[in-house]
Amino acid sequence: MDFVFANPTKVYFGTSQLPHLPEELLKFGRKVLLVYGGGSIKKNGLYGRITSLLEEQGLKLFELSGVEPNPRHTTVNRGVQICRREGVDVLLAVGGGSTIDCAKGIAATVFADTDDVWELVEGKQSIGRTLPLVTVLTLAATGSEMDCGAVLSNVPLNIKSGLIHESLFPAVSFEDPSITSSVPAYQTASGSADIITHILDVAYLSKPRQMEMLRNIQEEVLRTVIKFTPVALREPDNYEARANLMWASSWALNNFMYCGVQQCPILHAIEHELSAHYDITHGHGLAILTPRYLKYILNAATAPVIARLGVQCLGVDAALTEHQAATATIEAISKLYFETFGLSSTLSSLGIDDSRFERMAQACCHGLFAPDGQLHALADLSAQDVVEILKLSL
Amino acid sequence: MDFVFANPTKVYFGTSQLPHLPEELLKFGRKVLLVYGGGSIKKNGLYGRITSLLEEQGLKLFELSGVEPNPRHTTVNRGVQICRREGVDVLLAVGGGSTIDCAKGIAATVFADTDDVWELVEGKQSIGRTLPLVTVLTLAATGSEMDCGAVLSNVPLNIKSGLIHESLFPAVSFEDPSITSSVPAYQTASGSADIITHILDVAYLSKPRQMEMLRNIQEEVLRTVIKFTPVALREPDNYEARANLMWASSWALNNFMYCGVQQCPILHAIEHELSAHYDITHGHGLAILTPRYLKYILNAATAPVIARLGVQCLGVDAALTEHQAATATIEAISKLYFETFGLSSTLSSLGIDDSRFERMAQACCHGLFAPDGQLHALADLSAQDVVEILKLSL
Repeated sequence: MDFVFANPTKVYFGTSQLPHLPEELLKFGRKVLLVYGGGSIKKNGLYGRITSLLEEQGLKLFELSGVEPNPRHTTVNRGVQICRREGVDVLLAVGGGSTIDCAKGIAATVFADTDDVWELVEGKQSIGRTLPLVTVLTLAATGSEMDCGAVLSNVPLNIKSGLIHESLFPAVSFEDPSITSSVPAYQTASGSADIITHILDVAYLSKPRQMEMLRNIQEEVLRTVIKFTPVALREPDNYEARANLMWASSWALNNFMYCGVQQCPILHAIEHELSAHYDITHGHGLAILTPRYLKYILNAATAPVIARLGVQCLGVDAALTEHQAATATIEAISKLYFETFGLSSTLSSLGIDDSRFERMAQACCHGLFAPDGQLHALADLSAQDVVEILKLSL
Repeated sequence: MDFVFANPTKVYFGTSQLPHLPEELLKFGRKVLLVYGGGSIKKNGLYGRITSLLEEQGLKLFELSGVEPNPRHTTVNRGVQICRREGVDVLLAVGGGSTIDCAKGIAATVFADTDDVWELVEGKQSIGRTLPLVTVLTLAATGSEMDCGAVLSNVPLNIKSGLIHESLFPAVSFEDPSITSSVPAYQTASGSADIITHILDVAYLSKPRQMEMLRNIQEEVLRTVIKFTPVALREPDNYEARANLMWASSWALNNFMYCGVQQCPILHAIEHELSAHYDITHGHGLAILTPRYLKYILNAATAPVIARLGVQCLGVDAALTEHQAATATIEAISKLYFETFGLSSTLSSLGIDDSRFERMAQACCHGLFAPDGQLHALADLSAQDVVEILKLSL
């Protein structure tokens, strides 16, 4: 149960904080690379507010726009070139996890001895000095605003993989829940599924014993997301709901929740294959996989953990037998994702068929989390098991 | 509800971490001032382990020992002199909150334009550059291992006051729960009362609305302390209990739990007067005051919050009326502190009479938390109210 906890990210939370953005950037210099996605920040006015604020304070802005929902290593590499050419002092990512992850890729590569972030992803180059990163979060989902990981896609290779390094925590993140009022229902729902899965996958459904306080807090954050997502879907402007979801997203993956847990995020390992091959929305992929995974691993050994999840977080009757309660938990998760959240329930609805299942299963059982060819968490999964779970999800 | 969250302290948690101490100190230099208290670390072997580790790695140790349970500004000033004379690079506090707070006072004063930390406490000098601080925690109680505050006593003036500054977070803290196996029952119980009161006083019993996720997590940590303190009292070697209590102590006061809360720690304000005048154990003073304070402020406006505390954390029947449940909560807290924890229940048992109540009440209603002569939290308290609460606690 021994662990090291450290999280240096400073968070400004609330509706009144954006005016602090220039002073935080100026701690690192005047030349800023603004990184953003498909332009929703232009529609909702955030782009204008930020550029005005920064230009008033004499900051010089460069731009990398069009970051993809599954950010590509080639986009990262474009950002690296801009930073080197212009002598950028600090990165400003304005967006959700994809945009922030892209910026982390840039931060890691600018001072490296390569033009290609993928060499760092593959471990051919190690991460040394990094460019500082400030973020303005626009979507409650990935937790990237307060963690030190980045997930990037190599489209030609069909690989989604990542960087994890203690120097990749954002220096400062701005979280204004009111910005997320304009997030569409589908992205809100997928983001919440991502938050829930972080807690399940990285902490709650892990093998070793955990500190009781932390397991209870995991349940508390799960209950928060389960309660407030429908509120945000019904009333997109509900500040209380948006604030709870946003702060939950940061704490679901910022190291606190899984102190002392030996991590093997099985659902993420499988979903990264789906996103790498089909470029789907990460949280939606996780939602489809979760109940099938739980059903597949349900046995006498796993039932107590799955049952507890349902009883504590999903209104499952504590009087049921463990196996009954676990089954009811899986049903409740399906109902939550596919009815309450309104997400479609099958991989085929996302245009995915079984043609690449074998290849994906082999890849995720020979990656970062499966050095011995199996994934080890609450249950142990071989590549064949992964194929079965994917088939159940079709 | 807007707030800024930042906590840069790196924590090594567990039984196997102490060997990392030399490398963390060496990041700052070779000359270390070891700060500790009355010598319990010599009895339990920790002193020997640490000095051996550091000397093997070529670190040069200086010592400030005998830090008082309510650390005195004169002791801080002695430490400042040693640091200046020897050119100390980094402070190493080995102890509980008192020792760590003393070291923070030293850290703040070494580079200041004064020999006396009290000038910083009084605001005559401001805190600028500070000496880095590493801690090895030996008692789950104050949270000082992961916060940026220090409470110091000026005995001639009968004032207990403090420093709060973002540069006073420890750079690194080592938390080994097994070290606390040798903490006597009285200190274990007082420490737990301190943890509970941090949550109540700084967050749970505050006036403004809070983010629901955080209020629920406060209750989770309260339940953790209420559950595991009796276990630690019964089985001092119970690692699970000690680990939960230690991690709870750090999180009860490290900024997370009270994000967005307008703070007015009324119980701390009153207790600091008791400790300043009578040098009692802080957590014990808090335990005596808490049920009397709650009884004094109980009315239709405060009953819902007090009742919720009991229902969520102390087994109070949810079917009671709010007023009945609040009364039952106060009884349950008394029972917890004065029976289960085994702490004596009256100020007179600590040798305190009413002769200074008026003076103490005036002082705490004209201090840091009462700029307008009243304390404002769940209830508003005048100096006369404080006198009444102290009389109820006799």
